Amino acid sequence: MNYRAIVHVISLLLIFLSLGMASAGAVSQLQHDASSCSKIFFFCAGVTLAAALLGLLFARRRRGEREYKTGVREGFAAVAFSWLLASLFGALPFYCLADMTPADAIFETASGLTTTGASVIAETLTLNNGQLLSGGLESLPHGLLYWRCMLNWFGGVGIVFFVLLILPLMNYGKGNQLYNAEVPGLKTDSEQLTPRLLSSVRLILGVYLLLTFLATAVYWLGGMEVFDALCHAFATVSTGGFSTKAKSIGHYQSAFLQWSVIFFMFISACNFSLIVKVFITRKFLFFADEEFRFFAYLTCGASVLVALFLYAHCPAGIPGLNGTIPRSTEAFLRTAFFQVTSLISTTGFATSDYMQWGVTPVLLILWCIIFPCGCGGSTSGGIKCSRLIVIFKQVHSEIKRCLFSRTLSDVRLSGNRIEQSLVHKTMAFVLLYLLVFLGVGVALTFLVQADLQTALGAALACLSNVGPGFGAVGPAGHYAWLNAPAKYLLVFTMIAGRLELYTVLVLFLPAFWKR
Amino acid sequence: MNYRAIVHVISLLLIFLSLGMASAGAVSQLQHDASSCSKIFFFCAGVTLAAALLGLLFARRRRGEREYKTGVREGFAAVAFSWLLASLFGALPFYCLADMTPADAIFETASGLTTTGASVIAETLTLNNGQLLSGGLESLPHGLLYWRCMLNWFGGVGIVFFVLLILPLMNYGKGNQLYNAEVPGLKTDSEQLTPRLLSSVRLILGVYLLLTFLATAVYWLGGMEVFDALCHAFATVSTGGFSTKAKSIGHYQSAFLQWSVIFFMFISACNFSLIVKVFITRKFLFFADEEFRFFAYLTCGASVLVALFLYAHCPAGIPGLNGTIPRSTEAFLRTAFFQVTSLISTTGFATSDYMQWGVTPVLLILWCIIFPCGCGGSTSGGIKCSRLIVIFKQVHSEIKRCLFSRTLSDVRLSGNRIEQSLVHKTMAFVLLYLLVFLGVGVALTFLVQADLQTALGAALACLSNVGPGFGAVGPAGHYAWLNAPAKYLLVFTMIAGRLELYTVLVLFLPAFWKR
Repeated sequence: MNYRAIVHVISLLLIFLSLGMASAGAVSQLQHDASSCSKIFFFCAGVTLAAALLGLLFARRRRGEREYKTGVREGFAAVAFSWLLASLFGALPFYCLADMTPADAIFETASGLTTTGASVIAETLTLNNGQLLSGGLESLPHGLLYWRCMLNWFGGVGIVFFVLLILPLMNYGKGNQLYNAEVPGLKTDSEQLTPRLLSSVRLILGVYLLLTFLATAVYWLGGMEVFDALCHAFATVSTGGFSTKAKSIGHYQSAFLQWSVIFFMFISACNFSLIVKVFITRKFLFFADEEFRFFAYLTCGASVLVALFLYAHCPAGIPGLNGTIPRSTEAFLRTAFFQVTSLISTTGFATSDYMQWGVTPVLLILWCIIFPCGCGGSTSGGIKCSRLIVIFKQVHSEIKRCLFSRTLSDVRLSGNRIEQSLVHKTMAFVLLYLLVFLGVGVALTFLVQADLQTALGAALACLSNVGPGFGAVGPAGHYAWLNAPAKYLLVFTMIAGRLELYTVLVLFLPAFWKR
Repeated sequence: MNYRAIVHVISLLLIFLSLGMASAGAVSQLQHDASSCSKIFFFCAGVTLAAALLGLLFARRRRGEREYKTGVREGFAAVAFSWLLASLFGALPFYCLADMTPADAIFETASGLTTTGASVIAETLTLNNGQLLSGGLESLPHGLLYWRCMLNWFGGVGIVFFVLLILPLMNYGKGNQLYNAEVPGLKTDSEQLTPRLLSSVRLILGVYLLLTFLATAVYWLGGMEVFDALCHAFATVSTGGFSTKAKSIGHYQSAFLQWSVIFFMFISACNFSLIVKVFITRKFLFFADEEFRFFAYLTCGASVLVALFLYAHCPAGIPGLNGTIPRSTEAFLRTAFFQVTSLISTTGFATSDYMQWGVTPVLLILWCIIFPCGCGGSTSGGIKCSRLIVIFKQVHSEIKRCLFSRTLSDVRLSGNRIEQSLVHKTMAFVLLYLLVFLGVGVALTFLVQADLQTALGAALACLSNVGPGFGAVGPAGHYAWLNAPAKYLLVFTMIAGRLELYTVLVLFLPAFWKR
C-alpha cells in the first residue's frame, strides 16, 4: 500500500475544504453574524489547511520519483478515507461554533458531504456542554447555515471530481473503469462525449456550476433572498437537501418557487454526461436515453398516483409544514410532485409531512421509489434507475430462458449491449444493497428504541442518501434523538451508500490490507 | 401445446384428491359429526372423481400413440394448472359443508395445498347466505378440520410427487432439471442417492410417511387425542400449519409437546434427500451439508436472540395465546424457539402472538427469517437457505473481484461447484422474489384498507407460504377481513410462491401460448 499517494490525495481535498470554510467565514461577515463567528470559521480553515500542508509534506515525492506507484487498492483507500477525513475536518465548525457533540457534528457533516441531508438539528439541540439550544435551525448563525449547504454542494461535485479527476492524477489507470463499473450508463456516454477525459470532466463541472447559478437566479426571482437562494441552490443541485429554513421549502408558499425547485431537483438527478451531451449537441436527446425515460415516467407515474390517492383520502386538504395545503388540483399535484421528486432525486426537501397524510398506499409508493432513486452519473444516491432496468430485463430474460433454454438474450440499455459480467455485478450490487439495508435496520433496533418503520426508514434514507425517512425520522422529524453509536453507524451507512458500497466494503476484506 | 397430456396429469391428481375427500368422509363418520357431513364429503369426492374420469376420457391416447408428445411448456402448464384446479375442487367441501363464500373457500384450500396455512376462519365466519357462524374453528365438523390438514399434507407431498414422479411420466425429460434449477442443493444429492429416479422418489415419500407417523405417535404421547395428533402431524410434516384448535399449539400447555412440535417443524424444513441419505447410510451426515448447517445455526441464533430480547423486555412474562407464559428460562427459550422455528420452517403454528410482544428488534428478526425460510428440497417455502448462501458467497466474491479483477472464484455449496449460470439464475430468482413481494404488497394497499406492516406482512407470509404474517394478519389475526379481489391476489401469490415463481410467471409470457 502506497500511503503517501493516499495522503497526497486527501491533502489536496482538505485544501479545497479549507477554502470552503474560509468562504463560509466571509459569508458570515457579509451576513452580519456575531463577529466571533467568522473568526472561528477562519480558525477552522487554518487548522484544516495546516493539516493539509503537513500531509503534503509527508507525501512529497522522493528524489527521482516522477509518479506515485499506485494500484487499485490505493484508489479505493483514497476515496473511502477522503470522505471519512473530510467528514472529520468539516465537522470542526459545528463543533467549535455551535458547540455540538462530536457525534452530532460528524453526523451533520457526513450527512452534508454525502448529500444525504439528514439532520440532527431539531427544535432544540443538546450542546457539548450539556446546555439546550432552543430556536432550532434558524437560530444558527448564517455562516453555519451556509456551511451546511456548502457541504452538500461540495459532496455533490465530489463524486464526479474524485473519480474522474483525482484518481487519474494518481496514475490510477482504472479509475475510469471503476466509476463505469459502478454506474452503468456512463461508460458508453463518456466515450462518446469527448475524446479526452479531463475535458469531459471540465464540461461536467461546468454544467454543475451552471445549474447552481441558474437555480440561484430562479429561486431569487421566485422570492427567496439571495443568501437563501444560493444555499438552496447548493442543496438542490447536489440533491443534498439541507435547507436554511426549519420548514424547508414549505417555508415559501409560492407555487412558482416550488415548481422550480421540483424542476431543479429532477434535472439534478439526471445523468450529468447526458446533460453535457445535450449542451454540446444542442439537441434534446433526453428521451433517447432509456434510463432518463424510465426515471421520468417513474417520477410522473408515482406523482400522479400519489396525487390521486391524496385527492381520494384528504377531503379537507393536505396538512402542510406551513398551514393546510388547500384542495385544488394544482396544489395537490404540486405537493405530490414535490414529495415524489424530492425523494426519488434523494434531495429530501419537504413542503408537507407525508407521515401526517395517513394514506398507506402513498406511503408504500414513497418507500418503493427510494430504492431506485435517480440516474447513474448524477448526484443522486440509491440503487439508480439504470441498475433497476438491468435487473428487470435480466429477470425477464431468466423467465424466458425457462422456455427457451438455449437462448442467451442480451441485456441492452439504450440499445447498447451490457456485458454479462456487468449484469451479474449489478444483480450482486442490488442484493448487497438490500442486505446492508436490512443489516443496518436490524442493528438500529438493537441500538435504540425505535419502531420498525423508523428503524428501516432511517437505514434506507441514509443508505440511499435521501435524508428524511419514515416514522420518527420523517420530513418533520430529525436524527437528534439517536444515541452516539447509532449516529456513527448511520455515518458509515451514508458514506457506504454514497460510494456505492463496493468502494467501502472492499476495505473490510483481510486481503485488502495484506502485504 | 398438447392439452391432452396436461389434462391427463390433472385428472390423475384429481383422483388422489377425491380419495382424500372420501377419507375425510370416513373420518367425519368415525368422529360422530352430523350424518349429513360425511355424505357431503362423499358427494364432493364423487364430483371430483367424475371430473377426473371425464378428463381421462378426453385425454386418452389415440390409436397408435404410445406416449404423449410433450415439451417444457406442457410441464409448466401441467404443474401450474394442477395447483389451480386442485384448489378449485378442494374448495368444494368448504363451499358445500361450511357454506363459505367462493373466495373464502378457494383461499382456504389454496392456503392448505400450498402449505401456507393462512386462514379465513376467524372467531366468526360470514357464510355464503350472509349469516354469521360464531364459535370459529372449533365449531366446524371434525371432517372439515381433518380436510384442512389433509390439504396441507397433500400439498406438502405434492411438490416432490409432482416434479419427480408425474413430470417424468409425461416424458418430460427435463422435469428433473427443472426442479434442480429451482432448488440448488438437490441436484448433487439426488445423483448420489440412488441411480434410479423412481426409487429415490419412493424413498422420499417413505420418509414423508414415516415422519408423519412418528409425529402422530409423539403428539399422541404428548397428550393430544389421536384425531388431533394425526391432523397436527399432517400440518407439521408438510410445514402447512393448519391446526384443529383456535389457539393453535398454544392450546396445549405441555412443554414436552411443544418441544416435539419444534423438533418436527425443524426436521420437515430440512432437505428430504438429506434425510433419506441419513436413513440409507445410517450416518449422521447432517452437519456435512452446508445448507443444513446454515439453517440450524440461523434457527438457533435467531431463537437465542429472540429469547434474550424477550428476557430483557418482558419482566412479567410473555402474553401467550392461552394465558401468560411465565418468566422462566425454559419457557422463554421454548417460546422463542417455537416462534422462530414455526416461521423459518414456514409452518405457522403459534403458542404466543408476537405482535403483542411489542419488542421491535424481535419483530425485525422474525421479518428477516421469513425471507430465507427452510432448506431446498423440503416442504418449506420461501427463498430457501441454499439460495441465500449462494447469494452471500457471490456478493463476497464480487467485492473481492474489485481488488483482483482477474480472479473468477467459484461459488461452492458443500464443496460442490455451483455453475455460474445457476448462480445468476439464483440471483435473478431472489430479486424476482423481492419484486413480487413488493408488488403484491403495493397492490394489497390499493385493494384494502391496511397499514404498511399488515399489507407487506400478508404479501410475504403468502409468498413464503408461512401463513401468519404481521399486523392484522399476525398469529392471532386472520385473512377473513380481506375483500374477494385481495383474497384471489393472495391465492395467486401463494401458488406462485409454492411453485418457485418461474413455473407460474412463465405462463404470462406471450411466447408461452404461441402456436
